[in-house]
Amino acid sequence: MTENPWFQWKGDRLQVIDQTRLPLEVHLLELTTAAETVDAIERLAVRGAPTIGAVGGYGVVLGLREDLPEDLERARQRLDDVVDYIGSARPTAVALRVAVEGVRRAASAASSTAEMLDLAIEAADDFIQHDRASCDAIAANGVELLRGTRRFLTHCNTGRFATTGSGTALAVLYALHDTGDALEVLASESRPLLQGSRLTAWELREAGIDVRVIADGAGAAALSAGLVDAVIVGADRIAMNGDTANKIGTFAHAIAADRFGVPFYVAAPINTFDADTATGADIEIELRDGTELLRVGGVAVADVETGAWNPAFDVTPADLVTAFITDRGVLRPPFLDSIRSAIVSEQTMAPDA
Amino acid sequence: MTENPWFQWKGDRLQVIDQTRLPLEVHLLELTTAAETVDAIERLAVRGAPTIGAVGGYGVVLGLREDLPEDLERARQRLDDVVDYIGSARPTAVALRVAVEGVRRAASAASSTAEMLDLAIEAADDFIQHDRASCDAIAANGVELLRGTRRFLTHCNTGRFATTGSGTALAVLYALHDTGDALEVLASESRPLLQGSRLTAWELREAGIDVRVIADGAGAAALSAGLVDAVIVGADRIAMNGDTANKIGTFAHAIAADRFGVPFYVAAPINTFDADTATGADIEIELRDGTELLRVGGVAVADVETGAWNPAFDVTPADLVTAFITDRGVLRPPFLDSIRSAIVSEQTMAPDA
Repeated sequence: MTENPWFQWKGDRLQVIDQTRLPLEVHLLELTTAAETVDAIERLAVRGAPTIGAVGGYGVVLGLREDLPEDLERARQRLDDVVDYIGSARPTAVALRVAVEGVRRAASAASSTAEMLDLAIEAADDFIQHDRASCDAIAANGVELLRGTRRFLTHCNTGRFATTGSGTALAVLYALHDTGDALEVLASESRPLLQGSRLTAWELREAGIDVRVIADGAGAAALSAGLVDAVIVGADRIAMNGDTANKIGTFAHAIAADRFGVPFYVAAPINTFDADTATGADIEIELRDGTELLRVGGVAVADVETGAWNPAFDVTPADLVTAFITDRGVLRPPFLDSIRSAIVSEQTMAPDA
Repeated sequence: MTENPWFQWKGDRLQVIDQTRLPLEVHLLELTTAAETVDAIERLAVRGAPTIGAVGGYGVVLGLREDLPEDLERARQRLDDVVDYIGSARPTAVALRVAVEGVRRAASAASSTAEMLDLAIEAADDFIQHDRASCDAIAANGVELLRGTRRFLTHCNTGRFATTGSGTALAVLYALHDTGDALEVLASESRPLLQGSRLTAWELREAGIDVRVIADGAGAAALSAGLVDAVIVGADRIAMNGDTANKIGTFAHAIAADRFGVPFYVAAPINTFDADTATGADIEIELRDGTELLRVGGVAVADVETGAWNPAFDVTPADLVTAFITDRGVLRPPFLDSIRSAIVSEQTMAPDA
């Protein structure tokens, strides 16, 4: 199982890398309370759907450790409160909800408060084991699909920071790199928070993969110049019809790829598909504070009173997606069928089903 | 004629706004010598092709005022020296060469040194009068075309800093605002140099126009959300078939506008159309230093050794352009015909033709 050093549960605290300070500073955060967990999620010190889920799961454990009543009923109430508190830290992140609900389900079966804590830890551990196995499966399925494809455009960060394993879209690139092919990757910087230039460029360089940063608006020019064989991105939430919520800027790349006949792949674990979301129209888009746009790398570039429209995500319609690369195989159109089948197979195989 | 407060000839000095310090600081530069003029141009304190030309023209006047020999032959030598000195401050800026050569041609016809100074001032004045009239004509043609359209997406900066008048694309927005309509403008920030958030957002706010900054990658999301009735941008160079070179990121907006059936307008003076450029394939795209993408205000956002691909412009194919709004009217498809006719009419009417 591919682990990564940026996510470590220490028994009484969670050690994670502060992604806002990368790449100039490698700073480890020590989370010890539910409030610190929520703060880390809200200010994007931890980000990437699976990582947020994993942090959320251990966040529930931390919340129980902080204040766990002796009385079992009151402990269950505490569990519910902590799950609700952490689960709402980022509304679009379906993995966060999956993770904290998994902990709630496991822990609420306890017959003592001591057992409740053990079961919560076990469920949080399960989530990251599952996440890491999921990354490996995505990588394997991606290599099978894309072996020989060398030149990629990717957006945001979907690797060793976004997951507790090797990533989603980047896991595929790592696996292709391991086949010996010399990849050429363009990473769009991903304004406002620059996950592309700060995180993706950094981790791909670390892995010895040739990567160049481009402006988010340069995707169409790169495709037009013939520099891209395939676009590959991750996802924050995918509707049952295949409409895909991902970092703002993804949709523009998808439209441009379509114009140039370049395939557009979304790599994501099966739990990114949300059975409660029929289409992209049902996905609520988080509007973030505009000041994120008025600063670059912490430096003010415009008066803070300047207005801004700063959606965290956009929704790429399913008709622009060539295929989904998941831990349950490669899903192709018609997506209503292939997605439903994959989810059913996941529910059949999952131990908690 | 619409003037703007950021460019003022004061008889013995030129007052211009220092664009490098905007928007955090409104600092007026007082240029009194040829050397100060060259310095302002070289360090990009003044930018935008027409603005650079206008500054260069008055720079020649300042150089003559500094040291104008009584003897006419020696004064002509001085004129030549100053023109060559200022004209080479930015070798690639065509407008600068046009402006200073215009002053040389006019002033060298003088029969006394006093007359030489008068003629130089007159030629420098002529350049900005022509620039301002051109902006006004674009604005008038734009209002006629777009009256009642309220919600715009624009890119980069095309207003009171880039010209000595009201601008090109922004001149149209100012004129629409003057009709009493409440505009809602989205300005994409225009990475890497942020002309959208630093300059466009600032000058539209100053004018009382509702403007919000968006990430360059958020254009598709804004169009998808129904926030945009029309996209309007400027141009750096336009081929005879209508293919349009403009700030990187323009092409992506055009493709997205096309998907959503939203019109895409290019506002530019007729001299932006290049008779020597048949199609976009003939436009050489300037690749700029990648550090622009990796640093902001001297602060690194990624390791400087990270690779980058940083084209200054992209080329939007003519099939994505709804119409060109020029000082010689609105040009519609088929562009090969409408562009050629407009250029012929310009050459017929220009005094120097």
